[in-house]
Amino acid sequence: MSPSTPARCKGNSNVHTMNIPWEPHTPEEAMQLAFKAARKGIRGGNPLVGAVITNEEGYVVHVGYHRGAGTAHAEADAIAQAELADTDLSDTTMYVTLEPCNHFGRTGPCSHAIAESGITKVVYAHPDMSDAEGGAQYLREQGVLVEEGLFKNESFLLNERWFRASAAKRPFVTAKVASTLDGYIAAEDGTSQWITGAEARSLGHKIRERSDAIMVGTGTVLADNPSLSARDEAGNLYERQPLRVALGMRDVPDEAMIRSGDNFVHLRTRDPHEGLEQLYALGVRQLMIEGGPAVVSAFLKADLVDELFWYQAPILLGSGSTAVQDLGITTLADAHRWAIDDLGMTPGTQIVGSDFRVHLIPNH
Amino acid sequence: MSPSTPARCKGNSNVHTMNIPWEPHTPEEAMQLAFKAARKGIRGGNPLVGAVITNEEGYVVHVGYHRGAGTAHAEADAIAQAELADTDLSDTTMYVTLEPCNHFGRTGPCSHAIAESGITKVVYAHPDMSDAEGGAQYLREQGVLVEEGLFKNESFLLNERWFRASAAKRPFVTAKVASTLDGYIAAEDGTSQWITGAEARSLGHKIRERSDAIMVGTGTVLADNPSLSARDEAGNLYERQPLRVALGMRDVPDEAMIRSGDNFVHLRTRDPHEGLEQLYALGVRQLMIEGGPAVVSAFLKADLVDELFWYQAPILLGSGSTAVQDLGITTLADAHRWAIDDLGMTPGTQIVGSDFRVHLIPNH
Repeated sequence: MSPSTPARCKGNSNVHTMNIPWEPHTPEEAMQLAFKAARKGIRGGNPLVGAVITNEEGYVVHVGYHRGAGTAHAEADAIAQAELADTDLSDTTMYVTLEPCNHFGRTGPCSHAIAESGITKVVYAHPDMSDAEGGAQYLREQGVLVEEGLFKNESFLLNERWFRASAAKRPFVTAKVASTLDGYIAAEDGTSQWITGAEARSLGHKIRERSDAIMVGTGTVLADNPSLSARDEAGNLYERQPLRVALGMRDVPDEAMIRSGDNFVHLRTRDPHEGLEQLYALGVRQLMIEGGPAVVSAFLKADLVDELFWYQAPILLGSGSTAVQDLGITTLADAHRWAIDDLGMTPGTQIVGSDFRVHLIPNH
Repeated sequence: MSPSTPARCKGNSNVHTMNIPWEPHTPEEAMQLAFKAARKGIRGGNPLVGAVITNEEGYVVHVGYHRGAGTAHAEADAIAQAELADTDLSDTTMYVTLEPCNHFGRTGPCSHAIAESGITKVVYAHPDMSDAEGGAQYLREQGVLVEEGLFKNESFLLNERWFRASAAKRPFVTAKVASTLDGYIAAEDGTSQWITGAEARSLGHKIRERSDAIMVGTGTVLADNPSLSARDEAGNLYERQPLRVALGMRDVPDEAMIRSGDNFVHLRTRDPHEGLEQLYALGVRQLMIEGGPAVVSAFLKADLVDELFWYQAPILLGSGSTAVQDLGITTLADAHRWAIDDLGMTPGTQIVGSDFRVHLIPNH
């Protein structure tokens, strides 16, 4: 890298979204910046993706990242900033942590947006193997130079569970648990409202809102009669309401609150794999599981939980119903191991009102 | 407050330990700054205390706080900074969150240091009711103006459990728990090494080092044969080694590692109150309890845990030995309630290596 005064890019070079030293970047450095941006996003139905645009001298001119399903993809986010700043994108390179999508979903295909933007070259870390694949081929057809594989393994690791879920054609599964400090979700007499406070429940509703579907077991439907609606802090329904799913063999009464509205499905099975298969066929790409312990434990045993939010209230019960049931583990070496997932917008540990939350991904 | 250019104090007014706006402070504002400084400290055998020195116009010239037993008290810390900065302390007022001590302990009495410093007036929030009391009287005898009671209640709440422990003439009790995410300290077959990682254990040793005594039950001595020494990250013994305490009715074998060295005591009782009384008589002002579950639960049931560090490894067992035993609680309303204690040097939640830690104080 040259220590001399940098040449400025053609557009408004003062628009940045990250604190980037104003120096030319090697391809490796640019891709690492894209990873850093990717980690500002949130997990879910879509992978974490970051995109960095550099000019012909290697100076970073724009950075974008994906903020979760329904929002602009990383590439579109970076291009939108270039448009705002009136940056000329000819002779620029985009470094992106995943192959640009070629899919008309809730947002347009990134492959088209890139080709139209004038970007000359795209370097991506890992190919897209989901139903949005084909972006690289489209870009090549449009005359854009395309390279694959820079930090491919890092990209796989960043979104490993998302890759595995999309390869298996099943939804990405987020589980939410809310327990006492010592792991109970109810006292001996069954009292459980409320263990965590209003702030924690409100944050739980935000995860609901970004999900395609929310699941509870039929036992929870009968015991708690939850509505499973996604509401904001004022108690008003979010515009987007996920599919409400009851899993299990027991009947769901006609008057159950989970049935109110037309977004309800009863999956009459106890098999997590079977449940996910049916939901995927219904278009569900992210599922949030809220309980009870039997459902959560069945998905844990089947290694089908891709992301875990564990809310803990700073209270001790010493006895009661446990958040996780017997997993068939008898020795420490066989424990289910997780990693604290410390992302920009979803920190690994976080105080939420009087409670706290831990964000985890499988570590095996 | 005047918006005009402030008059500078007589000494080196550029030495500050906090980011303080350079404006005159009311007594209330000065005391609130002292509280803010106090919260940078750590709990334990000594209370959290902060001290602020203002000049005759109300400008803050120095701030100090107590960093834990064995280190300078808040008042001495502020005066030491004044000495470093060559600040003339005549015509200054010290705002301190607790009555200055009058006690020759590991550090000299603050009452003497203040009188010698030339400080004209001392305003303190709450009287000292421990065996270090008498500072206000000494200061008055030396001709220093003394006022008591500004934000007295806040000072009590900040150190409520320390006040209660010192009034009861018992040690302040810190408990440490290290469990899985779902609250187990061992798998069904008894395997437990290691649930938390090296970083978490190292941080645990730092709490040991600052304690007067470390306690385990005789059951833990027989099962795990811990040495209970306080070691640094390299595995070397800290210079200061706390008293090692076994609590319980079972014999401690001659060859038990806890007996190595001369700093061991066996308290042949199961009663937490009785154990604390004996330790207080031995000079112990802070006790750290490390387990097992029976000892921790007995102290929890007796409401004798003043501070709780809960380390959690991001692993799930689903069954095994629980960190907390039956507390006799059958309904949620009777749960033991805690508050996340978010202090400057001891954050409420903290990622430690691959694990995390929560810091709690009783909330009832």
